Amino acid sequence: MDLVTFGEAMVRLTPPAFQRLEQAHSFDAYVGGGELNVAVAASRLGVASRWVSRLPDNALGHMIANRAREQGVDVRAEWSADDRAGLYFAELGAAPRASSVLYDRAGSAMSRITPGSIDWASVFDGARWFHVSGITPALSDSAAKVTAEALVAAKSAGLTVSYDLNYRSKLWSGEKARAVQEPLMEHVDILMTTEEDTRVVFGIGIEARDNYEHLDSEPYDQVALSLEQQFGFRAVAITLRENPLVWLNSWSAIVAAGGRIHRAPRYEVEVVDRIGAGDAFCAGLIVSRLENHDWDEAVRFATAASALKHTIPGDFCLVTSSEVENLLRGASLRVSR
Amino acid sequence: MDLVTFGEAMVRLTPPAFQRLEQAHSFDAYVGGGELNVAVAASRLGVASRWVSRLPDNALGHMIANRAREQGVDVRAEWSADDRAGLYFAELGAAPRASSVLYDRAGSAMSRITPGSIDWASVFDGARWFHVSGITPALSDSAAKVTAEALVAAKSAGLTVSYDLNYRSKLWSGEKARAVQEPLMEHVDILMTTEEDTRVVFGIGIEARDNYEHLDSEPYDQVALSLEQQFGFRAVAITLRENPLVWLNSWSAIVAAGGRIHRAPRYEVEVVDRIGAGDAFCAGLIVSRLENHDWDEAVRFATAASALKHTIPGDFCLVTSSEVENLLRGASLRVSR
Amino acid sequence: MDLVTFGEAMVRLTPPAFQRLEQAHSFDAYVGGGELNVAVAASRLGVASRWVSRLPDNALGHMIANRAREQGVDVRAEWSADDRAGLYFAELGAAPRASSVLYDRAGSAMSRITPGSIDWASVFDGARWFHVSGITPALSDSAAKVTAEALVAAKSAGLTVSYDLNYRSKLWSGEKARAVQEPLMEHVDILMTTEEDTRVVFGIGIEARDNYEHLDSEPYDQVALSLEQQFGFRAVAITLRENPLVWLNSWSAIVAAGGRIHRAPRYEVEVVDRIGAGDAFCAGLIVSRLENHDWDEAVRFATAASALKHTIPGDFCLVTSSEVENLLRGASLRVSR
Amino acid sequence: MDLVTFGEAMVRLTPPAFQRLEQAHSFDAYVGGGELNVAVAASRLGVASRWVSRLPDNALGHMIANRAREQGVDVRAEWSADDRAGLYFAELGAAPRASSVLYDRAGSAMSRITPGSIDWASVFDGARWFHVSGITPALSDSAAKVTAEALVAAKSAGLTVSYDLNYRSKLWSGEKARAVQEPLMEHVDILMTTEEDTRVVFGIGIEARDNYEHLDSEPYDQVALSLEQQFGFRAVAITLRENPLVWLNSWSAIVAAGGRIHRAPRYEVEVVDRIGAGDAFCAGLIVSRLENHDWDEAVRFATAASALKHTIPGDFCLVTSSEVENLLRGASLRVSR
Amino acid sequence: MDLVTFGEAMVRLTPPAFQRLEQAHSFDAYVGGGELNVAVAASRLGVASRWVSRLPDNALGHMIANRAREQGVDVRAEWSADDRAGLYFAELGAAPRASSVLYDRAGSAMSRITPGSIDWASVFDGARWFHVSGITPALSDSAAKVTAEALVAAKSAGLTVSYDLNYRSKLWSGEKARAVQEPLMEHVDILMTTEEDTRVVFGIGIEARDNYEHLDSEPYDQVALSLEQQFGFRAVAITLRENPLVWLNSWSAIVAAGGRIHRAPRYEVEVVDRIGAGDAFCAGLIVSRLENHDWDEAVRFATAASALKHTIPGDFCLVTSSEVENLLRGASLRVSR
Amino acid sequence: MDLVTFGEAMVRLTPPAFQRLEQAHSFDAYVGGGELNVAVAASRLGVASRWVSRLPDNALGHMIANRAREQGVDVRAEWSADDRAGLYFAELGAAPRASSVLYDRAGSAMSRITPGSIDWASVFDGARWFHVSGITPALSDSAAKVTAEALVAAKSAGLTVSYDLNYRSKLWSGEKARAVQEPLMEHVDILMTTEEDTRVVFGIGIEARDNYEHLDSEPYDQVALSLEQQFGFRAVAITLRENPLVWLNSWSAIVAAGGRIHRAPRYEVEVVDRIGAGDAFCAGLIVSRLENHDWDEAVRFATAASALKHTIPGDFCLVTSSEVENLLRGASLRVSR
Repeated sequence: MDLVTFGEAMVRLTPPAFQRLEQAHSFDAYVGGGELNVAVAASRLGVASRWVSRLPDNALGHMIANRAREQGVDVRAEWSADDRAGLYFAELGAAPRASSVLYDRAGSAMSRITPGSIDWASVFDGARWFHVSGITPALSDSAAKVTAEALVAAKSAGLTVSYDLNYRSKLWSGEKARAVQEPLMEHVDILMTTEEDTRVVFGIGIEARDNYEHLDSEPYDQVALSLEQQFGFRAVAITLRENPLVWLNSWSAIVAAGGRIHRAPRYEVEVVDRIGAGDAFCAGLIVSRLENHDWDEAVRFATAASALKHTIPGDFCLVTSSEVENLLRGASLRVSR
Repeated sequence: MDLVTFGEAMVRLTPPAFQRLEQAHSFDAYVGGGELNVAVAASRLGVASRWVSRLPDNALGHMIANRAREQGVDVRAEWSADDRAGLYFAELGAAPRASSVLYDRAGSAMSRITPGSIDWASVFDGARWFHVSGITPALSDSAAKVTAEALVAAKSAGLTVSYDLNYRSKLWSGEKARAVQEPLMEHVDILMTTEEDTRVVFGIGIEARDNYEHLDSEPYDQVALSLEQQFGFRAVAITLRENPLVWLNSWSAIVAAGGRIHRAPRYEVEVVDRIGAGDAFCAGLIVSRLENHDWDEAVRFATAASALKHTIPGDFCLVTSSEVENLLRGASLRVSR
Repeated sequence: MDLVTFGEAMVRLTPPAFQRLEQAHSFDAYVGGGELNVAVAASRLGVASRWVSRLPDNALGHMIANRAREQGVDVRAEWSADDRAGLYFAELGAAPRASSVLYDRAGSAMSRITPGSIDWASVFDGARWFHVSGITPALSDSAAKVTAEALVAAKSAGLTVSYDLNYRSKLWSGEKARAVQEPLMEHVDILMTTEEDTRVVFGIGIEARDNYEHLDSEPYDQVALSLEQQFGFRAVAITLRENPLVWLNSWSAIVAAGGRIHRAPRYEVEVVDRIGAGDAFCAGLIVSRLENHDWDEAVRFATAASALKHTIPGDFCLVTSSEVENLLRGASLRVSR
Repeated sequence: MDLVTFGEAMVRLTPPAFQRLEQAHSFDAYVGGGELNVAVAASRLGVASRWVSRLPDNALGHMIANRAREQGVDVRAEWSADDRAGLYFAELGAAPRASSVLYDRAGSAMSRITPGSIDWASVFDGARWFHVSGITPALSDSAAKVTAEALVAAKSAGLTVSYDLNYRSKLWSGEKARAVQEPLMEHVDILMTTEEDTRVVFGIGIEARDNYEHLDSEPYDQVALSLEQQFGFRAVAITLRENPLVWLNSWSAIVAAGGRIHRAPRYEVEVVDRIGAGDAFCAGLIVSRLENHDWDEAVRFATAASALKHTIPGDFCLVTSSEVENLLRGASLRVSR
Repeated sequence: MDLVTFGEAMVRLTPPAFQRLEQAHSFDAYVGGGELNVAVAASRLGVASRWVSRLPDNALGHMIANRAREQGVDVRAEWSADDRAGLYFAELGAAPRASSVLYDRAGSAMSRITPGSIDWASVFDGARWFHVSGITPALSDSAAKVTAEALVAAKSAGLTVSYDLNYRSKLWSGEKARAVQEPLMEHVDILMTTEEDTRVVFGIGIEARDNYEHLDSEPYDQVALSLEQQFGFRAVAITLRENPLVWLNSWSAIVAAGGRIHRAPRYEVEVVDRIGAGDAFCAGLIVSRLENHDWDEAVRFATAASALKHTIPGDFCLVTSSEVENLLRGASLRVSR
Repeated sequence: MDLVTFGEAMVRLTPPAFQRLEQAHSFDAYVGGGELNVAVAASRLGVASRWVSRLPDNALGHMIANRAREQGVDVRAEWSADDRAGLYFAELGAAPRASSVLYDRAGSAMSRITPGSIDWASVFDGARWFHVSGITPALSDSAAKVTAEALVAAKSAGLTVSYDLNYRSKLWSGEKARAVQEPLMEHVDILMTTEEDTRVVFGIGIEARDNYEHLDSEPYDQVALSLEQQFGFRAVAITLRENPLVWLNSWSAIVAAGGRIHRAPRYEVEVVDRIGAGDAFCAGLIVSRLENHDWDEAVRFATAASALKHTIPGDFCLVTSSEVENLLRGASLRVSR
């Protein structure tokens, strides 16, 4: 097991064919959640991964575990007899209607995880990297405590630790997010985030905008470098999305490491399903680093992998390393036949 | 408004084509809940009906209200800003695998209804009948209190009150069900129930069985008469289901009223979706009585209406009075063309 | 071309999964119509067939012609610039709710066919058999006139003529059906019908019943023999359906010919879609006779072919002669593998 | 009831996934029609609305009424025992294949409405606004008479009257449209229309073009002002669509009122289903005016609401006022979560 | 790893809704194959299982491996660069049309497995039971050789060996089946089979019949005992199916062991998908024996598990041990709620 | 019969909604193959066409023949008792993931066609044009021999012969393609090809690129003229595709004939399904020439027809000549209603 991630996964319900939730008479069902998405993408890209979570011992909990196993992830679940599975309803939009998520995860099994219940030494045995995102501590106070517990354990076990800020305004306020997460940063080696979240959570960043039709990446260089310096991270990665439309985005990323900026090319992406693209980016970065590539290569690999994610229904990034490498070599958009 | 009902409705999610929940990649979505089902069936059968509930002010809450309106029901919802919509997952079976329900309704808006929040005088204005089932008080202590409040208000407003026992072992224990509901019975005119529930809740009834392949109705005559007498009901209705198989049941009912038994014919039903059949029976009985039919006619009408419900996907009984009357006259099973 | 049939085909719209029409959010689309169904079944069973009709020159008209061609039928359509395609909505039932058809065929291109517009000599060139059903003259007065025209032309061209009574109460009254059709019978060699229709149309038959749970075939022997004698038919075929349920019927048939009764075995059929079963029976009889089999063999072949039709979605009987023969030899119900 | 609309609604059948009609094996079913679409959008945007029509008393007629009720519309239908429901088949295109509609509405219940059959005094009781479109008088001569009747009654009852020109070349010629509608304009306060229709119907407007890739709005200012002046309208609204592609349009509108032009911003819209966008615009204008906003605000609100309609499958504009206002404030296209 | 199985799995394509293959416009896709089905069922019933096979390194090969992993099976695949994945098309029938399988597995990766390519010592390390069926040697001569190799290796590693006869007339003749398999039997401890196969393959058994409407189990007692004695098996299990219809079967089994017959109860099963029922029976027997139950209990457990399989779409038996035990205790067919 | 084509058609399986193959749980099924696609498009555009092939006598072979007949194509199939139908899996992409085809056609009936088995004199009787593509000789050595046989026969029967180069790197190498096809060119009148294939196969052409975002057509003029001259073709047609994205391409073509270049306009196409666009182009060219149009008109007609193909699901170009002509006249992208 090279990579361990920790967080909640949910059953996701999406109306077909761009219907609004309210008009749906059926839902497509997927499984997803930030940290599971990272574990799945890493597994598909060739890195053995384990996902740690808490799940209800009912059909939905087992659906979640099975779909993780299907992608080759080693599931280390604490099974709960009483709680419910987290759900979320995702409505896919079209300009000028943004896609939207309705969370229904209160009271989930994972939100009721308790400190001390996970044997971190056993979980981390043989592992080299630990990844968690800001969603996990947002779930509940006890989940935040277990997140801290995990970070400490990972560092003491000598793992590289990455943290995706993943701010969710529907789960907590910016203030609470900052109060809980700033103390956690001391255990973090690599921070991964978007253009918007660092300003909300750490007060470092560019003013949020309604309109991300065009995005200069340069101002974000400075944000990344500031964060790197202020928190002492080994690296800070920021994804950069331009979305003049919902179905057509452009996607890139930068990494600040050792005071230098590493920059990925920009991809025009036709958006089938962009949920999980950030997670695919994290996975790409982790996989590339675990395979001992430098940051230039890692940010290129991660950006290409996550560009491909936008084209795949569901939360999971179902691509192989060779597909990512084809894209990096400039693959044609013609039918392959 | 002739009929008022009070209770929770949920979004129901059912895997297509007899799939097990765990293997589903899509769900058919319906709206249902005992008391809403009664209001819908009554509306379709020609009686103006109102449904009182509490719903979250989100897409799922509005989906529920809209689907009730679609069937002509007057929705009197208290809208809640924070809570969730109740959900349930229903897996349709085949012999020897029974159909099964996974409730996910904890913390629903309706379970958090508070005493005093409903203006019952306004709700009952102009109404003639009030109906509620044992699911409503099972939702939470406060829901039980509001149920009691509603029953008192209905009686004092001079409405006929019917109560469907609807025992749900996944919601509460038999003991709790009895403790909460026995005191409510003094406000009830007509009790509606199945073969199994009275024994669990009131200790009056026939021993529960695993096997309902064949059912003698006679022993239930005595159960109905005992209940009528002991609680002083104006009538007690018991539905009688034989289910040697999942897809083929036989369905009948009796009513005890004034010390006499009124008996419906027995229907062979091919089961598309039997959820809501009991509710359709309640609605049929209410509609027939509101139209001043005697108990003989009422039990026949209610049984035929609910026999038809078994053939319709979803919780709702989408039939008209003339379709029920055709069946009572002995309609052919040949293609109507 | 061995067989020519003449009549209307429609686009059929059926809600999936036993939904009622009113609740449908999608419809499965098929093409069907009595005489086209016969042509299709005959083509599949190995007899070259032509179907004569009138169709609108729009997407629905072409859909109808294409689906006929798909099954190998030679389509001889008069294309109309203005009229509409006939439609029908078919709701599939479950006991005790019968399946039901809502016709929407008024003003269809076929109903506006005019006498003299079809060149029957060319249509019948080289053909050996002509088949039409009582639906065609029911469409309109002009369609009735063209039906008579066709029957006369077929007889004078020396074809064998079969006529399926196919009474549709939603299209015309019994009185009108009799007034129009009795004069047509002099051109008919072989009458094909059900248990119910001869009494409505010709006053010869068994009292109609609501309940066809069990059916003695013997009384129908006398009906067939009477019809044969009274009208001077070469043969009279009557299909016999027991339908204690909607999903499980038993199916058989008799033929009276030369004063003798020829009897088919009885098949238990699990009903996927029984629309078109009567047409498949007609086709089976025609095919078997065109292949010079005697009436004993013909009624057996036709009954087996039409028993198989019950298991196939849509109006068309998509089976081969060798599948019918396997069934006649007593094919196993085990998975063939 | 604030708003009353009058017109036909149909069952709409659309092949999934951009299939052509001819190749479809299933259809998605929606309900729609200009004036019902307006009533639905208004209801969703917070204005109580009533829709007046004539419907067949069969499953399709009830489907139409139910789907209107689902959205909160008060349905005032005259039920017809014999006629059919209007249908239309809508094929969704992709450049260079335009979307296309095949009407099948001849002989519909609504086309057979007769003068004097609607009690307009009762229908308009308490209402403040009446809306109808040019489709209603196009249905039949009697429907045109009832339209005139309604307009007179609305004016005499003191309602504001709006009229959407909605020219349909598949229903009538430009000449007939002019002859019937010019006399109606004296009862109309507010005319709503597209770039193309005024020239066809009133001879005032810009030459029609095949190509609307780019559209200057200025020439339409003069069209609107001319119409306002010539007919004495209180306001004239014109929607402005650029469609270089089928899936990506840009959408805006102007209103001429009191000799001044009020202009909305221009939205890039990714087109899921543009049918009903014009109706959503009308509803937005009506709602905003009923809420006492000035024309500047009204045209902005109406344009934003109808921009959102393009993203929603089916004819109905299922958005709330707060969603429209978010868009007017410049909502992000990022996933809301 | 307790159980190891060895064989081919395919992508299965099934037309929805009882369509015939020829008329399908979509297929439901499942993964299945005798020995994988056994591994999956065992895993679901609580026994760690490994499946050994050869798969093409393309999307279909990975689909197969992933769906096995999803159910908890440890996949030990030899990945082939060039070959194809086996496919089969399964048409679901209705009486009197039997379900039917069209194999398209020629040239599959598994059929090209070569002797010596599997490291059986490593595969069997720690395992207690090996299972294979008669399909594997039927695939090709080299597959037959590898089957023999596996049986020898399993015995020498001390595993219990079970063999499901699984005769497939579409893969080889009875003569070839006998010639290849008789020599293999010396390595087999437990033979599992149906009523029909032993006679075809070993010449021991009851005359095959077209009609299995009613089945006396007694004659099969003697067949089982004869096989046990003649080949020296530790046990012989025979499943017994009555299929008067396609949708309703009755299902039971016997085991002969130590000269005694152990008999399971008979279940009425409503058939959603009977493919894989025999495999579920094998798995049930293996699981029960691995858990040290006696033959009486084992045959009861296996029969109940496989009765449940009939109700689940796809090849896999997705049930838990507690569901099987509920059935054995006589579970109700009422909705569980 | 004006046009004869010769080649393989397959059952095509495509996951819905942009799913990757590996994640699909259902497939949409189409029928397609280069030469059949040409015959279908020609038939739809008004030219009687015949398709010659070899098919397995099973449900899939008949599905293929039926779908060809549905579109009016005369199917001249050699039926094979043993072989399989070719299949292909097509995954639809989104930028930056290209669409991709997984062939599963090895061992197909068509690949086993043998020289001498087709009676070409009878096949070509009365025909005016023969078309084949480079896929047919790529299937197998015997198929290549039969291709040569057909070309010789067509020329000697006086037909015009067109050849679509259609290079498939998944079927054979460029070297083999050249070795087999160069000798065939002497029988070819008109070569049809893409920008890429001539260089691979004949060494004449522009360097292949990964990126076809923008394409100057001028360099291709020279390629076409060189090919025309070198091989002595009567004409060379080259299609020109710019694909900056997967869902939005631009599409044009040139024809070199008599030393002059004929150029079509360029169409922006929104891509529903671009498979078969090249075949539609070939059909358009053939139809236009058979109707005696000059090359200017022919290349315009062919390009417009094939632009429309991009908008239609499946391999077939389901458009009429009048739809193509509307587009050539500059049809609006507005909804036609």
